Amino acid sequence: MIEIHPVEGLPEIREGDDLAALIAERARFADGDVLVVAQKAVSKAEGRVVRLAEIEPSDDARELAADEDPRRLQVILDESVRLVRTRPPLVIAETRHGLVCASAGVDASNAPAPETVVLLPEDPDASAASIRDRLRALTGAEIGVIVSDSFGRAWRQGTTDVAIGVAGIQPLHDLKGVRDPAGYELHATVIAVADELAGAAELVMGKTAGIPAAVIRGVAARGEGSAKDLVIPADRDLFR
Amino acid sequence: MIEIHPVEGLPEIREGDDLAALIAERARFADGDVLVVAQKAVSKAEGRVVRLAEIEPSDDARELAADEDPRRLQVILDESVRLVRTRPPLVIAETRHGLVCASAGVDASNAPAPETVVLLPEDPDASAASIRDRLRALTGAEIGVIVSDSFGRAWRQGTTDVAIGVAGIQPLHDLKGVRDPAGYELHATVIAVADELAGAAELVMGKTAGIPAAVIRGVAARGEGSAKDLVIPADRDLFR
Repeated sequence: MIEIHPVEGLPEIREGDDLAALIAERARFADGDVLVVAQKAVSKAEGRVVRLAEIEPSDDARELAADEDPRRLQVILDESVRLVRTRPPLVIAETRHGLVCASAGVDASNAPAPETVVLLPEDPDASAASIRDRLRALTGAEIGVIVSDSFGRAWRQGTTDVAIGVAGIQPLHDLKGVRDPAGYELHATVIAVADELAGAAELVMGKTAGIPAAVIRGVAARGEGSAKDLVIPADRDLFR
Repeated sequence: MIEIHPVEGLPEIREGDDLAALIAERARFADGDVLVVAQKAVSKAEGRVVRLAEIEPSDDARELAADEDPRRLQVILDESVRLVRTRPPLVIAETRHGLVCASAGVDASNAPAPETVVLLPEDPDASAASIRDRLRALTGAEIGVIVSDSFGRAWRQGTTDVAIGVAGIQPLHDLKGVRDPAGYELHATVIAVADELAGAAELVMGKTAGIPAAVIRGVAARGEGSAKDLVIPADRDLFR
């Protein structure tokens, strides 16, 4: 059996907050547990917030903005290495981390102040590792950590939460041990366990409930890996 | 808290099996529980199995097959209304249900016999409704049912389980009540709860463990809807 426990009662997270300590005060951990933390909380603690007043939009940003704020689009362009699809003001982009997502992960909702937007963590794997290390120091428990974000999907309606940073987690479960380089998408032999864990945690978190973290117990996901393992290599990507 | 219980000890499912009764003998249900059943088990019970010996491959199927069995590719073409991407023998197709997935859901793994392939249920929502009705009759419990399948994703490595049929479940959780027709992918306000539930159930099912069903307790997902709600309408689909 798997249990998913929400971490309730966390305050609004601010830059410089010791997020791991705030969580440790409100949750119990055992070896093997997986903590899922919403990217927004991690980014806020890390100060990954941009004030739009400081942004000068380019012509490209103005064009992509349609009727929306071109400064927000400029931040999205600054976070992107490649635009995958655009339909102003909608932008799906590849971020510097290699993630493909709406707005390059730049989000105005739940931002700490008006006229600000929140960026993804600079290195989400490192953010996860830092939280894991701090929680080990505080609680003694050897846990896995996932930094999650809500991504839209091609062809499917609605978002699901996925893993953008991991520590102490094997993000993929490869049932064959060896992948078929031509047909791997045909055969469901590699399971994106970290993404399923992130989605499962979302079920108790919710965006409006103010619960940015959850503890999952009973999953054998321990291992080492990077959330970059969850990105399809360019030479296999049929949708570039 | 959410609990996810595997339904253990199910036999290999055969055509005509009363899948709901087999599950009811091995699981307990309370009102509000969500049963997730793997598509493969549902399809087998419904006899959705094709013997390749009866298939005559077309020239198109031979071309798409590369070094693989062209008869399997013919079955995929028969199940498809549109090919989205092809890289022989890999085919990503839109099925008659409107789903976009590898091989139009046609799968040779875990098939009931050699030289056979398993198709998706003809109407997965109806399959889910039939299981829900039968379980209500057997147990008295008012539950939701999800028929799940493992789908690959654009840009992301590995599969996650998603909902291809639902009954008694509201598949999308719309946080705003009203969707923004232009920017809905920008703002994570519509959550694909049914897909997250399917993925969460996969965490206890596993493809090799022979556990094709799981019961999720503690989720407020009750409602009415169709798995078709989880497919992006064509006019909003940036990836057609």
